[in-house]
Amino acid sequence: MSAILKENIDTLISQYQDGYSLEQAFYCSDEVYQRDMNRLISQRWLLVDHVSRIPNKGDYFLFDIGEESIIIIRQSDEKINAFFNVCRHRGSRICLEHEGNKGLLSCPYHAWTYELDGQLRPPRLMPDGFDKTQFGLHACHIKVTHGLIFVCLSKDTPPDFDAEFSEFNEMFDFHGFADAKIAVKRDYPNQCNWKLVVENFIECYHCAPAHAEYCVVHPEDQLLALGAGPGSGPKEAMEKYQPILDEWEEKSRAMGHPVYEIDHDEHSLHLAQLARLPINDRNFAAETRDGKPASNKLMGKFKQCDHGETAMVFNPISYILASNDVAMMVRFTPRDAVNTDVQLTWLVHKDAEEGVDYDADNVAWVWDVTIKQDKKITEDNNAGILSSRYQPGPYSTQEARVATFVRWYLNGIR
Amino acid sequence: MSAILKENIDTLISQYQDGYSLEQAFYCSDEVYQRDMNRLISQRWLLVDHVSRIPNKGDYFLFDIGEESIIIIRQSDEKINAFFNVCRHRGSRICLEHEGNKGLLSCPYHAWTYELDGQLRPPRLMPDGFDKTQFGLHACHIKVTHGLIFVCLSKDTPPDFDAEFSEFNEMFDFHGFADAKIAVKRDYPNQCNWKLVVENFIECYHCAPAHAEYCVVHPEDQLLALGAGPGSGPKEAMEKYQPILDEWEEKSRAMGHPVYEIDHDEHSLHLAQLARLPINDRNFAAETRDGKPASNKLMGKFKQCDHGETAMVFNPISYILASNDVAMMVRFTPRDAVNTDVQLTWLVHKDAEEGVDYDADNVAWVWDVTIKQDKKITEDNNAGILSSRYQPGPYSTQEARVATFVRWYLNGIR
Amino acid sequence: MSAILKENIDTLISQYQDGYSLEQAFYCSDEVYQRDMNRLISQRWLLVDHVSRIPNKGDYFLFDIGEESIIIIRQSDEKINAFFNVCRHRGSRICLEHEGNKGLLSCPYHAWTYELDGQLRPPRLMPDGFDKTQFGLHACHIKVTHGLIFVCLSKDTPPDFDAEFSEFNEMFDFHGFADAKIAVKRDYPNQCNWKLVVENFIECYHCAPAHAEYCVVHPEDQLLALGAGPGSGPKEAMEKYQPILDEWEEKSRAMGHPVYEIDHDEHSLHLAQLARLPINDRNFAAETRDGKPASNKLMGKFKQCDHGETAMVFNPISYILASNDVAMMVRFTPRDAVNTDVQLTWLVHKDAEEGVDYDADNVAWVWDVTIKQDKKITEDNNAGILSSRYQPGPYSTQEARVATFVRWYLNGIR
Repeated sequence: MSAILKENIDTLISQYQDGYSLEQAFYCSDEVYQRDMNRLISQRWLLVDHVSRIPNKGDYFLFDIGEESIIIIRQSDEKINAFFNVCRHRGSRICLEHEGNKGLLSCPYHAWTYELDGQLRPPRLMPDGFDKTQFGLHACHIKVTHGLIFVCLSKDTPPDFDAEFSEFNEMFDFHGFADAKIAVKRDYPNQCNWKLVVENFIECYHCAPAHAEYCVVHPEDQLLALGAGPGSGPKEAMEKYQPILDEWEEKSRAMGHPVYEIDHDEHSLHLAQLARLPINDRNFAAETRDGKPASNKLMGKFKQCDHGETAMVFNPISYILASNDVAMMVRFTPRDAVNTDVQLTWLVHKDAEEGVDYDADNVAWVWDVTIKQDKKITEDNNAGILSSRYQPGPYSTQEARVATFVRWYLNGIR
Repeated sequence: MSAILKENIDTLISQYQDGYSLEQAFYCSDEVYQRDMNRLISQRWLLVDHVSRIPNKGDYFLFDIGEESIIIIRQSDEKINAFFNVCRHRGSRICLEHEGNKGLLSCPYHAWTYELDGQLRPPRLMPDGFDKTQFGLHACHIKVTHGLIFVCLSKDTPPDFDAEFSEFNEMFDFHGFADAKIAVKRDYPNQCNWKLVVENFIECYHCAPAHAEYCVVHPEDQLLALGAGPGSGPKEAMEKYQPILDEWEEKSRAMGHPVYEIDHDEHSLHLAQLARLPINDRNFAAETRDGKPASNKLMGKFKQCDHGETAMVFNPISYILASNDVAMMVRFTPRDAVNTDVQLTWLVHKDAEEGVDYDADNVAWVWDVTIKQDKKITEDNNAGILSSRYQPGPYSTQEARVATFVRWYLNGIR
Repeated sequence: MSAILKENIDTLISQYQDGYSLEQAFYCSDEVYQRDMNRLISQRWLLVDHVSRIPNKGDYFLFDIGEESIIIIRQSDEKINAFFNVCRHRGSRICLEHEGNKGLLSCPYHAWTYELDGQLRPPRLMPDGFDKTQFGLHACHIKVTHGLIFVCLSKDTPPDFDAEFSEFNEMFDFHGFADAKIAVKRDYPNQCNWKLVVENFIECYHCAPAHAEYCVVHPEDQLLALGAGPGSGPKEAMEKYQPILDEWEEKSRAMGHPVYEIDHDEHSLHLAQLARLPINDRNFAAETRDGKPASNKLMGKFKQCDHGETAMVFNPISYILASNDVAMMVRFTPRDAVNTDVQLTWLVHKDAEEGVDYDADNVAWVWDVTIKQDKKITEDNNAGILSSRYQPGPYSTQEARVATFVRWYLNGIR
C-alpha cells in the first residue's frame, strides 16, 4: 500500500525535526521513492556480489534494483562488465535467467547480439546508414576490487571510487576477500520501504527485545555501546566499554592484525564506516552457537583468531561483516516504495570445503534467524506508519546512528 | 480496480440527481474514498463488538479499518480502552495478533511499554529532557454501553453519544445485551465499495430475486412494505401492511414488551433508526428454517416469544437485528476504495450453552447464506459500474431507504 | 507495473522519430492507455468471434475489453445483438457467466428484465412517471457478416463497415466462413501492453530466433520477404521471392481461386490488409507438422488444395489467417496498460467431425506453440522497456510493417 503524497517533498524535508523519525510520506509515497532512487541510490556505489559467483568467462548474474536489471558478466580472467539488461533494438530483456553463462549476449527476441564487452555485432537487415557502433549495450559503472563487485547506476560520472573507499584496502587485503568464495547466499524479500530496513540494521536498541540468538553471540555491554557499529550507542555506554575494546585492540595488534577506523559523517557521499570489534569477550571467535569458528580455514592473513569482527559500511545499503573465519555481505535493494530485497552472502576461504571445513547452515545461523526477525519487525513497522496517528518519534541514545543516517539521507535527496 | 477521478468531487455532488444512484466515481475513486473516510466514517460512532469478546483484564482484539488498526483492550472489570495500534517511538504496530491477552502493551520492536490505560512506562535510554507523559498511546474515542462497544476515530471531539443514542437504551436493556455472549462470528470480505454494501443492505427490492432462504423466513407483504426496515418500501405496501403490524404491536405490548420507533432523517449525524417488527405472521419466532427459536434461553427481559425482531441502525455501517432469542451485530468496514470487510456476530443469552441450548450453524443460518449472496451481488454491481456506459439509474419505490441514505451520505461529505 | 507519465502525450507524439520504436510511456502509462482506448480501440470495428459460438436463440458470450463487458447474444436465427453488460437500474453486471443461454436478460440483482433486443420490460414498483423506453440496455454497434461478428464500442456513429470492409466479401465467401464452425478456442493472457503484442505479430524478424516450429512450416525466403504479411519484409527479399509468388498465384487462379490484395495505408481507419500466399513451396497444404491438411473437409469453395493461406487484417488487433482447410481468428484485447488478452479461435467446415475429420490439437499445433513463445517474448520486452536506459531503437528492413503500424497508431491517437 503506497500512500498519496499530500505535501511537497521539500517542505517535508525542511520541516524535519532532528532526532526524530521521518514523516509518513518518506516511508510509503511513490514520489519520495522516485526521488530516493534518482538522487541518492542511483548516484552511489553499491556492493552487489563477489567475483567467485562468476569464475568463468561468460558467467553472469543479474542485479535487479527498482525497475532496472543489470547484467554483471565476466569478459575475461581480468575483466568483469556491467550492462543494463535492455536490448538497444526494441528494449527486450536480453538475459532472462537470474544467472548463467553466455558466450555472447544474444537477445532472445530478434537475435541482436553483443560481445561480452557490450559491442553490437552487425545485426541482420538493418537499413542503410545504420551505425552499429551507436548501439552497444548501455554500460553500468562497475568497480571490482579485492574480489568485491561494486556498481553505480548513474548516467553521469560516478563518484570517485578510490577517493571514497581506498581507506578500506588494507582491510580488504588482510581479510583476503580476493581469495574468498561464496559459501551460502540467501534472499529475504521485505515488504517495507528500504529506509526501514536500513534504520533497523544500524541500531541495536531492538536487539534485546527482538533478537535472542544475536544476544547470545554478543555480550550485553557491547551491544549497548556499539551493537550496530561505532556511533550506534549511547556515549556513556561507549565510555564504559572502551577499556575492554582497548584491551582487545592491543591484543589484536600484537598479533599483527590491522585495527583502524573509518567514520565518514552525514555530509559525506557514502556515510562509509569501518571498525574492528571483539565479537564477545567470553571467547567467541565467531558468530556461531558455540563461538567456535564456522570454517576451519581462516580467511586472508589471519593466522590465529583474534575473536574480532570488522564491520564495513560502504553505504547504508551495502555492508560486509567480516570475522576471522567468515565474512557476510549484506545487500538491501529497493524494488518499489514498499518493497526491499534483502540478500545475505557468506564468504569463506576459497580452499575451505563444504562438509569438511564448514557447514553452510552453521555459517549462516545467527544472521539467518536475525534477518528473518528483522523482516517481521520492519514490515510491522511499515504497517503502523500508514496510520493517520503515526507521527515521528524521538530516537533513544542507542539509536544515534539512525539519527545520523536520517540526516545523511535528507542531505542526499535535498 | 480503482478508477482515475476525472471531475471535482464537489461538482459531482452538486450534479447529483435525487432518486438516482450515484455517479461512477463515488464507487471506485481513491479520492472519494479518502473524503468518505475523513469527513464521514471517522467522524461517526461505529459499533465494533460485544464486551463478551474480551471478558478478562488484558483481553484485546483489533479493529482494522482503512489503514488504521485499533486496539480494543480491557483494563479492568469496569473499563475498556481503545488505542491506535501505533507505537509512539517509531510507529510499529504493537499488537500483531488479531486478538489475545496482554498484561502490558509492549511494542515488539524496541519494547516501549504502555500501561493498559495507554501511559508510557519510562523507556530505556532516552535522551535528557524526554517527557514520557507526552508519548502515551493515541487514544481512540470509545463508549461501552449495555455490553456494546462503540468507537469513533475522530481526532477531535466526537459526536455526543448520549444525545445521539440514548433513545436506544430502553431497547438495549429489554434485549439484555449486557447479559449476552458471542455465539458465532463470521467474516466476509467484499471486493466492492462500502456504499454498495450499505445500499444493498437497506433495500429489499432485491430480496425476491436474490434471497430464496430469506424469503422463506419473512412473508412477502412484509418484505415489500419494510423488508429493509421502516421507510425501505413503497408507501402503498406499508399502508396495506399496517393493520398486521398494528395487531402484532398490540399483542407485543400486551406482553409488556417495548414497541417504539426511532427514525432520524438525512440531516442527522447517524441516520439512526429503530423499529420492532414481526418476523413472520406464520408463527416464526426466529429467523430459522422452521421458525423455532435458535436458542432455548430467551434474551433479556423476554419471558415469551412475541415473534418480533428489533432492527437497530446506529449508522449505515453498524446494525443490530435482535429477535427474542438471538441478536446479530452487523459491521461493514471500509478497507479501501473497492474493498469492504463484512463481519456478522451473533449474540445469545450468556447462560445459553452451545450444543445444549443452541447450535451455532442454526443460529447463523439465514444471514450466513444471505450475506454470501449479497457479497456476490455487490461485487457484480461494482464490476458493472466500472463500465463507461454505467450511469446513475432510478430507484424503485422499494428502495426509498437507499435514496435517503444517498442524501445523508452526500450531506456528510459535502 | 505501470509507470508515472512524466511528459505530455502530445509532446511525446510530436517527438516521435520515424523508423524507431515508441518511447517508454506508450508501453506502460495509464494515461496513454486511456487515450488508446478512447481515441482508437473504441472507435474501430473489432472482430470478436464466429456465429457458430451462439447457434441458438438466447445463446450468448461475453467480450471483455478494458473495464467493459459486452454481451453478444442471439435474438433470432437472423439477428445477433450486442449490449453493454450493465443494468440500467443500478449498474450491476447482468450476465455473470462467460457464456450461456438466456431466454431474457434478467439482472440477478433486482430482476430488471430486458428482451433479447435490449428493451426493458416494465420493472416492479417504479415511481410514477418512470418511462421504461428510456432504460433499454445500452447497445453496442455490431455487424455480422459471413459468420463473422464485429463490434464497435463507440458512443457515436461507428465507421461505415461496408466502406471499410466490402473488399473482403469475395474472400469471406470463397473461404466459406458462413458455413464454418469453431473447432478449438484458446486463451493466452499476456502481461504486456497491447501494442507490444501487435508489433510482435506483424513482423517476422524474430521468427528465426524465436519460432523453430513456425520456421518448419514456412520456408526461409518467404518468411524473410513477407513472413508477417505483405510489406513486412525487406524490398529486396520481396523482389527475389516475387517469381515464386507469381507462379503460385497463377496456379491458384487456374484452380478458380480468387487471388487479390487489400493494402490500406497508415492514414486509413483500420490499416486493413488482405493477401494470399503459398504456405510452403515444399508442398505444405496446411500449417501442420507434415503439411497435410488438418481437416479432411476443405472450407468454402475450395475443391482442391492450392497450398495457400489468406491473411486478413481487419485492424491491428483483429485477424484471420485462412488456409484451404482451417481458418484461425486472432483477437488481441487490451485489458489495462500492461495486460492484453490473446484469444485464438480455429474454424473448420461445419460438417467436419472432430476425431473423424480433424484432431483439435493438430489444428491448433503451430500457432499454439508460436503464440506461447510470443507471450514470453512480449512480456520480456515490456520488462526491459521499464528500464531508465530503454530508448527507442531502429527497425530493421524486416520490420517495415511495424513502422507502418506505429505511424498509423500515432495518427489514431493524435
